[in-house]
Formats: sequence, structure tokens, C-alpha cells
Amino acid sequence: MTNTNVQYGDYLQLENILNAQFPESDKHQLPAHDEMLFIIIHQAYELWFKQLLYEVDSVAEIMSKPAVNDNSPELQTVVHRLSRMVTILKLLVHQIDVMETMTPMDFLDFRDMLRPASGFQSWQFKALEARLGLQYKQRFGQEYYISQLKQDKIDIIRKAENEKSILTLLNEWLERMPFFEEPGNWTNYKAVTPVEAGPEHIFWQDYRQLYSGGLAEAEKDNREYFNTVFADANAGGERNLSPKACRAALFIMLYRGYPLLQLPFQVLNSLLEIDEQLSTWRYRHMSMVHRMIGSRIGTGGSTGKDYLKGALDKHFIFAEIARLTSFLIERRKLPVLSHEMGQRLGFQ
Amino acid sequence: MTNTNVQYGDYLQLENILNAQFPESDKHQLPAHDEMLFIIIHQAYELWFKQLLYEVDSVAEIMSKPAVNDNSPELQTVVHRLSRMVTILKLLVHQIDVMETMTPMDFLDFRDMLRPASGFQSWQFKALEARLGLQYKQRFGQEYYISQLKQDKIDIIRKAENEKSILTLLNEWLERMPFFEEPGNWTNYKAVTPVEAGPEHIFWQDYRQLYSGGLAEAEKDNREYFNTVFADANAGGERNLSPKACRAALFIMLYRGYPLLQLPFQVLNSLLEIDEQLSTWRYRHMSMVHRMIGSRIGTGGSTGKDYLKGALDKHFIFAEIARLTSFLIERRKLPVLSHEMGQRLGFQ
Amino acid sequence: MTNTNVQYGDYLQLENILNAQFPESDKHQLPAHDEMLFIIIHQAYELWFKQLLYEVDSVAEIMSKPAVNDNSPELQTVVHRLSRMVTILKLLVHQIDVMETMTPMDFLDFRDMLRPASGFQSWQFKALEARLGLQYKQRFGQEYYISQLKQDKIDIIRKAENEKSILTLLNEWLERMPFFEEPGNWTNYKAVTPVEAGPEHIFWQDYRQLYSGGLAEAEKDNREYFNTVFADANAGGERNLSPKACRAALFIMLYRGYPLLQLPFQVLNSLLEIDEQLSTWRYRHMSMVHRMIGSRIGTGGSTGKDYLKGALDKHFIFAEIARLTSFLIERRKLPVLSHEMGQRLGFQ
Amino acid sequence: MTNTNVQYGDYLQLENILNAQFPESDKHQLPAHDEMLFIIIHQAYELWFKQLLYEVDSVAEIMSKPAVNDNSPELQTVVHRLSRMVTILKLLVHQIDVMETMTPMDFLDFRDMLRPASGFQSWQFKALEARLGLQYKQRFGQEYYISQLKQDKIDIIRKAENEKSILTLLNEWLERMPFFEEPGNWTNYKAVTPVEAGPEHIFWQDYRQLYSGGLAEAEKDNREYFNTVFADANAGGERNLSPKACRAALFIMLYRGYPLLQLPFQVLNSLLEIDEQLSTWRYRHMSMVHRMIGSRIGTGGSTGKDYLKGALDKHFIFAEIARLTSFLIERRKLPVLSHEMGQRLGFQ
Repeated sequence: MTNTNVQYGDYLQLENILNAQFPESDKHQLPAHDEMLFIIIHQAYELWFKQLLYEVDSVAEIMSKPAVNDNSPELQTVVHRLSRMVTILKLLVHQIDVMETMTPMDFLDFRDMLRPASGFQSWQFKALEARLGLQYKQRFGQEYYISQLKQDKIDIIRKAENEKSILTLLNEWLERMPFFEEPGNWTNYKAVTPVEAGPEHIFWQDYRQLYSGGLAEAEKDNREYFNTVFADANAGGERNLSPKACRAALFIMLYRGYPLLQLPFQVLNSLLEIDEQLSTWRYRHMSMVHRMIGSRIGTGGSTGKDYLKGALDKHFIFAEIARLTSFLIERRKLPVLSHEMGQRLGFQ
Repeated sequence: MTNTNVQYGDYLQLENILNAQFPESDKHQLPAHDEMLFIIIHQAYELWFKQLLYEVDSVAEIMSKPAVNDNSPELQTVVHRLSRMVTILKLLVHQIDVMETMTPMDFLDFRDMLRPASGFQSWQFKALEARLGLQYKQRFGQEYYISQLKQDKIDIIRKAENEKSILTLLNEWLERMPFFEEPGNWTNYKAVTPVEAGPEHIFWQDYRQLYSGGLAEAEKDNREYFNTVFADANAGGERNLSPKACRAALFIMLYRGYPLLQLPFQVLNSLLEIDEQLSTWRYRHMSMVHRMIGSRIGTGGSTGKDYLKGALDKHFIFAEIARLTSFLIERRKLPVLSHEMGQRLGFQ
Repeated sequence: MTNTNVQYGDYLQLENILNAQFPESDKHQLPAHDEMLFIIIHQAYELWFKQLLYEVDSVAEIMSKPAVNDNSPELQTVVHRLSRMVTILKLLVHQIDVMETMTPMDFLDFRDMLRPASGFQSWQFKALEARLGLQYKQRFGQEYYISQLKQDKIDIIRKAENEKSILTLLNEWLERMPFFEEPGNWTNYKAVTPVEAGPEHIFWQDYRQLYSGGLAEAEKDNREYFNTVFADANAGGERNLSPKACRAALFIMLYRGYPLLQLPFQVLNSLLEIDEQLSTWRYRHMSMVHRMIGSRIGTGGSTGKDYLKGALDKHFIFAEIARLTSFLIERRKLPVLSHEMGQRLGFQ
Repeated sequence: MTNTNVQYGDYLQLENILNAQFPESDKHQLPAHDEMLFIIIHQAYELWFKQLLYEVDSVAEIMSKPAVNDNSPELQTVVHRLSRMVTILKLLVHQIDVMETMTPMDFLDFRDMLRPASGFQSWQFKALEARLGLQYKQRFGQEYYISQLKQDKIDIIRKAENEKSILTLLNEWLERMPFFEEPGNWTNYKAVTPVEAGPEHIFWQDYRQLYSGGLAEAEKDNREYFNTVFADANAGGERNLSPKACRAALFIMLYRGYPLLQLPFQVLNSLLEIDEQLSTWRYRHMSMVHRMIGSRIGTGGSTGKDYLKGALDKHFIFAEIARLTSFLIERRKLPVLSHEMGQRLGFQ
């Protein structure tokens, strides 16, 4: 490596970064001290959203490869980058503490000057939700959020929605898991045998009986979900994960101790943590907005906190994985895997 | 001070504290490693609940004194202890990260052995909610939560409900605020003049006109709330804060810059932060429970997360203060206080 | 307010912010995934440094006013903005968790391409230290850090060093505190009576006797410091705070319960918290650098962690305030203030 | 599982836990409000120390098994529990925020009543350091800390020091890593061939040449360390990790992408994080003590912060692993492993 001559300020483009704050209250000759905080915290959020999109794209790229479902270095990289996303999301939650050092009265000094700008115009955040797997039709208040965006930004989100999301890639990856394949077919990924026959069928049949107790104490809609998971692949058109994929995920959770299932388990776990941090962020965000503007109309022209509340309940992207925890049974009651299966899931 | 001879272990009663963990899974000869974490984290929570109750009692005692509404050292102590409560609640939220290092499968190893024990039997937490101002009739799922508790614990909560809560004391303290009294009456706390007459009436009449814009863009139920705040004291039997008290709180928010209003503003702000941290704790707690047991029945015999979800929406104790932020107007549009009023709110 | 037409992206200058990341590893056709994180986290740090400088400048401006040492709204604003700085610094400490998701091997992929750029070239951070009160002559490794900077950046720091720092303004503000003035002179700020005579002299004489015990158990250099604090103003040329100012600070700590001393106490407390968070940030930063590059030479051309270690011990800006805690005595042993003094420190 | 009848309060032994707070200031009829916080926060710390000891013991037990160095479920459990320890340590750092809500004046109200009790009498924390691998001879201020403890507590720590520590077990585990063994010997753990001969010798010889550049820019004592790592096992009697073990650790860091090295890398990483969190805790603890008592003598009879400062520099338990990061080279320059070696580190 020939010695380069990089300077800190040039490298970080600080001329652009540090001269990009133009408070509206100055333009109106009504300077409001806290508007600088308001601008800088949103710019920091957008920088982190860019980083999150960068990580999610790299994860999607790796998961698109056919060979990822053996424990290749790539899968370790997927886990590493997903857990980095979790770490970043925790920081974004913490960042709300800084925003809350602005009191409602301090915000009032300039909030009317920002209309109709609003955090709901953050196309990066919506693109992030889309890349993870949130579809337009699943969004709360679709018309509203479209109405907030200009066409070029809508196009960016649309594009993100049209790419293969992490959720879609997760489904394909889980369906490829050849736990119940013949050893000979271990490495090639032909369509798997239908659930109606072969070892998988038998395994899950046993499992359903073992689980019957847990099923009894579950809620009704949960029992229905349980059945679709063990029914054939055609059920539940509204679902993002096929029964086959759900069974693979459940199998990973149940037998995560086996070497070959350790990283896959970490993948599932990281995705649930991402969902949880996203929802924590929405919740703290909602509380903060409520505290800041009470029941007023937000600068975006509608009550932001209603949107946030709706999103809170509807935007769980990996909910189908989360629900599988209802179907776990005690380790000591688990079916013991055959020696051959054990070898398959081990390293030798 | 004669030199005592205190030993660390005796002082902290470590013999009792460190020998109080008896995993059920050991009794059943089915040792589950993670049960120790489960016990210790709950014991840590209960220790902190005791501390929170200790602080809230001391705050209530101070606020019961008639003279507290000048800026006495006591009021500073109230602010200091309320913000300590906020700091502790933030720690309790963080503590959920530790609980989440337990996976659903690890919990399954012993959860059935705990029936019917359940976190909903934490009478200290319920007593804390009650001391702050949550009344029994406002609780979500009253019958359910009673059904979870033994009589002696119910009595503890009842006792807490029957004492004057922080919310009640806040109302009395705010009603005593003699902002619009005659200077001569400054120090004595006789019943204040009715709002229909005198300077207060005039002030708020002006204020309503100034605010009309904000009112226009508020939601319907908010407009109604606005009117009750400025109507006579008899309206809204369901309310915990009288119109008079709400007006005093609003006045404090609007003119917090005045020396005499600085600590009162910090009191209101700390109470809102306590509500926010409590609700964040409930939300993270709910997500954690969901992730841990899915849609199963909790050890307590019912779905804990439904209870938590209900509590989430209903248990905002200082909501009436929070709503007042809807009625703020820009500083630059505020009525300028009379010189006499200014002096009253200053130090000389 | 005429309705403006502000758009989110334009308002936040996202075109500039989100297109300011140019990884060196791309230029070298050796793309390193983690360089994007490296760039974005440093840009986020610089955004927050700008905000901290913005707050510190506004605090300095307020503290430059002669009238600030009665409890005016300005003093409340000072407290509010200093504690906001504490909140931001806690976020910057947390941000290190994100940096630590980059492993040493991942950093190695591009670190050599960054030479000689280095975090030590962050002139904003050095300007922040200077504005708070760190003088050039007190810096660890002066030559080194100068060698890292280009002239225009050195000039920025020099300029910051030449303005009145918070520490200097704190000294002037404390010296103005007229606790022991004649009531008549309450509001004018003439030079105070020398400590050798008058009520202040008598007060501290009593205090020294009461404290004698504490002094006995203090370290030697601490005893010397104690004496200089109560000696005349000419002692200790190396000191940033005059004995007169130190006595005022000590008085505030001892009698903070009095209304007039409540905000001043919060000012002192916030400044100590800023120092503590800055040092925590340096410590975590040092650990992180150590973990990242071991004992290698940093990209800046010298071992960064040695610089950080040196700064860690030397860069406590408000150390002279912190040391005063050694001279406190139990509340119950405090000299009772005269009725007249009590009135002066109260509101009536 | 027959339905048990466990009650929350009995299960958690709340009678013992919640009635174990006896403020000294009450006994002296000089009640100090904040002593309750002081007691409860220390009890919470001791509860968490018990949990940390519980986890470290379970990790030690697993690492004592001969077969742990293939990727068995046990190794995953080791990683899981070590990272749980990191999560708990982060909470303990956060807990200092709560302690800091106590001001020096509030502490003064009761601190003299606690003599000679002191946090340095926490035998659980010292046992934790010992179980991780800190030896008595490496401790800062050995005589001092012994003088603080009663014999029965000293015995507890001695016992912990005499058991095989995580550091010792790490060394044995790393030495067993048969990366350069003949394939046929893969599963048995006979003493490995001396470094002077065979594939390992050749591999590291190549590596030293590749690294020469990095060595040039390292510090002197680091170059010496580098040489000992590649010298025979007899060098450096003061060392806790043998050269053979260090080379294995370095190999794991360099080639962590290989399936078989993924969990071992996570083990090393978690141990470094534990060290880092422990040192962050010591640093924040030291700052807090400094702020609380200034330069006074601590209740333990000596200046606590000096002890903490000394410990800060000396008590890095896994420093020898941390230093290896100095010897990494860019991935693209790494020696490509032979096909046979690759297979060994893969799953087939």
C-alpha cells in the first residue's frame, strides 16, 4: 500500500456535513435556539438510516446466494451484520433522550415554520422497512404516508419494495434447509419431498402429539396458525412464510444445540431483535411526539402519533417467526434425532 | 461520632440476600441453569421497587405540608427525588436486556414448575402505581389482577390506594398556587377567588382568544377537554385534576422562566418522565413476554401480555398534565405579565 | 405565520448529508465493507460536536452578562443547556458500542489507506475542550497534537482558546456572588471586601475549625489546596479559580437548600457531570482503540491510546470544583446562617 | 408436570429480601434519607455478582471437559453465558448512574457511621476476578485488600484462586487445538508436535515474514512479546498463556471465517468484552468515588480511588489475548490454507 495522504476533514467531507444546518427560524428573523438541535438530531438519524440500509443490502446480497445454507463464512457475516443493526437501533432509541431535552415550549418557537415537513417524509426509514419485508399493502395508513411524499421519494420506496426483501430471502433459505433430505442429496437443493410423506411427515406427526398440551392452552387464532404450519404449503395466502419454512424455523429453534443449526438460530434471533428494537423505537418516538405536541396536528398535517400507534401494532415484520415460540416444547420431551440425522447436523 | 464497627457483609445482610435463591427445578431434580437468573433478576426488581416506594413516600410526605408552594428546600428535594425515580426506572428498563439473554427454550425448562406464581403478583409494583395515583377503578383487568393476589397482599395495595397519592397532592398543591391572589394574601392559602371574576378570569379569557388557532387544529375530544379546563370546577367528575389545578399547571408551563416557577416546572416535568418511563417499561416488558412465551398462557394462568397491553393504554397517571401541552402557545405571543405579577414571581 | 413550504429532505440538506461518504477502499479497488460504518460514525460524532459547541457558545454568552447571578431565567437556561450537553455526551459514549461491532481484522482491511488521517485531527472536539476551559499549556502532548493539524484548523482552536472560556466565566460569576455583602449593596457588584476582614472572614474562620477533623484525614497536597482556598487571592498562580471563587462554590454546595443557591448548585453539578462524561468517553475511546489496533502505531502516525491515556489524567477541566467536595462537612454540623443572611438567600 | 403451587413472594423469598435493610443512621437516631439507596444499590450489586459467579462456574465446568474443542453444543453454551455476563456487566455500569443521584452532602450525612465497612470488602467481586484468572500476586495493593477482609472471606477468595480459572482453562483449550495435527489424529488430543518442526513451524515462519512490516511499526516491548509468541514454550515465566496457546488464538482471529473457528472466535471476543466492561466499571466507579468523597479517606480506611486506579491498570485478565491484535495482517495478505486444512476447518 503506497502511503496515501488522506486528511480527516476531507475524508469525512466535513465542509458539507458541518455547513448543512439552516434553521428556518433564522430565515424568519425569529431565531429559536433549539432548532439547531432539531436539525442535527434528524441528520444524525438519516446518517444511521443510510448505514442500516447499507447493512441490509449486504445481508440481502449474501442471502441471495444458493450455497448460504451450509455454515459458510457468509452466514457468519449475515449474523454479524444483523446484530450490528440491532446495536445501531439501540443507539437510535437512546437518541430520543436527546430529543426530549427540548421542551414543548421550545419546540413551539419554530414548529409552525417547518410545515409541511415531517419525519414521515423520511424515505430512508420506509425503504428500510420495505427492504426488511414490510409490504405496501401491510402498511398502516397507506394513503396518508403516500400523501406525505413526493414522487421521486415514493419511487425510491417502491423500488425497495420490489426487490427481494430479507423476509422473502429468509423464506427461500428456510425452505432450502434439507434437514429431512437423503444424505446423498445433502448439497444440492432440489425441490424437497412433500410433507405428506417421508421422514419430515413422520417427525412432525410425532411432534404434534407431544405438543398437544401446549396447543390446548393456546389462544384460538394461535391454534389455527399452528394447523396451517403443519398443513400443506398452499394454505394461508396472506402469509409471508410457507409452512415448510416455518417448520424449518421451528426445527432450528428446537435443535439449535446442533453445530449446523447454531448460526441459523442466531439469524432468526437477530431478526426478532431487529423487529423488537424497531418497535421500541416507534413506541418511544410516539411517546416523545405525544409529549411534545400533545393532541395537536403534527407539522406533517396529520397526527403523527396516530400513525406511529398504527404502525406499532401492524409493522412487525418477522411476526410469523415470533409466533413459533408458542409451539416449542421442553428440551427433555424433544424427539431424539436418529444417529444419521445427528451426524448430518454435526460436523463429521 | 464514635467510631462504629460496621462490617460490609453484616451491614448489607448478605447472609440473607445471597442465600435466598431456591430454584424449583432443583426441587424437581430437573435442574434448569437459567432459573437462577430468573430468580435473581426478579429479586433485583423487587429491591428497586422498594426503593421507588421509599422515594415516593418521602415525596408524598413533603407535598402534604401546606408551605411547600414557595420555593422551599423541600420543593428542591421533591424534584431531586422524583428525578432519582426516573433514573431508577431507566435502569429497570435496561434490566430487560438481561432477561432477554434467556431464550424461550431455556425458559421452557422450568416455567411450568412456577405455576401459578407470576410477576403480576408483585404487590410492590401495584402499590407504587397506587401511591403515584392510579386508582383501582382505573385499572385494566381489575378482577384478573385481584384473582392473582392473596388477601394480605391485596390489603397492602388497598392501603396504598387509600393514602393521599402524589396525583391528589399535586392537585391540592396546584390549587394552592396563588398566582392571581392579592399581594397581601401572598403567603396565606385561603380558597382562591372563583374563576368567573378577578384577574385570573381576565387572564384566561385573553388566553383563550390567543389560542383559538391552536384549538381549531386540535381533535374534538381535545377541544372538549380544553373547555372543561377553563370552565368552572364542577365539570368532569372523572377527572383527577380540577380545572383550577390544570390552569395553574398550564400557567407554570407557559411562564416557567420566572424564578418562582422554575422548580414547579421541574416537578411537572419529572412526573411526566415517570409516566413515560413506566410505560416504556411496560412496553419492553410486554415485548419480552411475547417473545418468551408467544401466545401461550402465562404461568399466572392468563395471558400476561394482554394485561400488559391493556395497562399500557390505561395506566398513564399524569395524562391530564400531559394533555395540557396541547394548549401551549408560542412564547412571543404570550400575554406579558403585569409588573406587579412579575415581581410576585421573582425573588424580590 | 404565513404557511411556509418546507420539505423534509431540503430542510435537512439530505442531498449533501447522504452523499458525503467516499470510502478510500473503493478508490483503491479493494472495497472494505466496514469502511462505510467508519465514515458514518465519525460524521455523526462531528455533527454532535457541532451541537455541543453551539450549546457551549450560548452558555458562554449568557454567563458573560453581569446580571446572571440572581436566579434570572438566563440561569435556568444555562442549567438546561449544560444538562443537555451531558445527555449528548452520554449518547457519544454509547456510540462506541456501534464502533466496536467492527473487528480488528475488518478494520485492517482499510486502515492503512487512511494515513495520515486520524481522529486527533478533530478540531471541533479540541475547540470544545478549549471553550470549556482547557488551555493549550495544560494539554497532554501539545507538540504532538499540533503536528496533527493544518494551520487553518490550529487557528480555529487558538481562537477558541482565546475567547473567555466557561471556566473563566465561572470564576468571574462565582467571584461576583455577594453572599457576604451588606444588604444595601445586594444588587451592585463592587469589588467584595477582602477575606481578612468582615463577615466572610469570620464565617470561614469558624468553618476551618469545624472542618479540622476532615482536614486531618485528607492527603497532604489536599491540605495545601485547602489552605490556598482560604488564603488570599494571590496564591497559586497555576490555578484557574481564585480562592474567592472557590469559597463561593463551597458555600453553594454547603447551603444549596436555600432557594437562591438551587440553580447555582445545578450549574456546578452539571459542569462536573460534563467533565465526568468527557473522561468516560476518553476512557471508552482508549479501550476501543487499544482493542482495535493493539500496540500498533495509529493512522495518525503515533500511538493514539497513549495520547488518550495522557489526556485522561490531565484534561479534567473543572477539577478545582471537584476537589472542593473534600472540604464539605455534615449538614448537622454546618454553621447556622444568620436570619438576615437567610432572608438574603430566600425569596422574601 | 403435576401442577405445583408456587407463590411469587415465597418463591423469591421476599420476606428475607425486602426486610434486610437496616440503615445505621436510624440506629444513631440521625436518619439520613439516602442511606436506603446506598444499602439497596449495594445489595443489587451483590445479587448480580452472585449471578456472574454462577455463570462463570458453569463456563469453567464446561471448559474442563476434554471434548469441548470441536463445535459441540457445549461451546455454544459457553459463548451464550459469556455474552450474558457482558450484558450483566453493562447493567452494573449503568447502575452507577443511580448511585450518582446521591450528592456528596447527602452521603456525608451517614458515611462516618459505616466505618470500617467498604465496597472493598466485597468478597464476591474478588472471587469473580479470581475465577476469571486474576492471581493474588498480580493484584494491586495486595496487603491492603487483605487487611480489609476477615479470614473466612479471605478463604473464600483463596479457594476461588486455587480452582482452575477461565484463563487457565482457556490456555489448555487453546493448546489442544489440533489445527496442524495429522488428519488421522484429528479427534485425539495428544501433546502436539513441537513448533520447531512440522506444518505449524512452516506456517508461522511464513507468517512472521508477511508481518515484518507491522512489527517494524510496533513498540519495543511489543516486538519482544511477538518473539516470545513464536519462540518455544519455555519463554516468559510471567505469562499466563503459552506461546502455543497464543498462536492458536491468533490463528482463530486470522481465519475466523472458517466454520470450525466461528465459535472459538466468539469465545475469545466475549472474554475481551468482559475485561473491557470490568475496566469500564472500575473507571466509572473510581470517578464516582472521587466525586463523592474527593481526596478524603474512604470508609474502608484508605483512599478507595487509589486502589481502583491501580486495579484499573493492572487487572486486565485477558491482556495477552488483547495484545495479539497487534499481530494481525490484512485478510488479502493471509496465507491461503491448504485444501486439506480447509476441509479440516470446514464441515465435511
